[in-house]
Amino acid sequence: MIQEIAQIDIRPGLEVEFEKGVAAAAPLFRRAKGCLGMRLLASIEKPRRYRLLVDWETVEDHNVGFRGSEDFKAWRALVGHCFDTPPEVEHVSEVLRGF
Amino acid sequence: MIQEIAQIDIRPGLEVEFEKGVAAAAPLFRRAKGCLGMRLLASIEKPRRYRLLVDWETVEDHNVGFRGSEDFKAWRALVGHCFDTPPEVEHVSEVLRGF
Repeated sequence: MIQEIAQIDIRPGLEVEFEKGVAAAAPLFRRAKGCLGMRLLASIEKPRRYRLLVDWETVEDHNVGFRGSEDFKAWRALVGHCFDTPPEVEHVSEVLRGF
Repeated sequence: MIQEIAQIDIRPGLEVEFEKGVAAAAPLFRRAKGCLGMRLLASIEKPRRYRLLVDWETVEDHNVGFRGSEDFKAWRALVGHCFDTPPEVEHVSEVLRGF
């Protein structure tokens, strides 16, 4: 399993709309091949900054499968207008679980 | 509960040393007041980039309690020489758990 971390800065005033869009999009992720979970985190220091964390079986499930799907267009239609800048997307894998 | 996200870029060649240092430091976090968990993630796209995720009861448990402690000095003594640049630290809270 790998995790997608998308750091997303939202246009001023659209924070609630963005959060509602992510909630509405949950079913799109849930039915995506290889998608294992999805959470939204908000920065405490930077109120317009969010991180969308999506667990995938493989990077390809995200980069090829989901991004090439109609559901990706539906996802962007729900939230894309809220983005202040293009999301910064990275994939990570767990190296160590301390406790 | 909040989560600390520390993005850390490591000096070339010190990745394994850094990972061992984090493993050795786990007991320092485990006994820190308000510390609820700790994990280390490695970037897939940027091999020298890590994210240390630490769960805390409050931001103050991290910023005041841990950073003001002797154990923080011990933590930095274990891993500080591996840092290529100062860590970028942010705190986040969960807004939504999609599934």
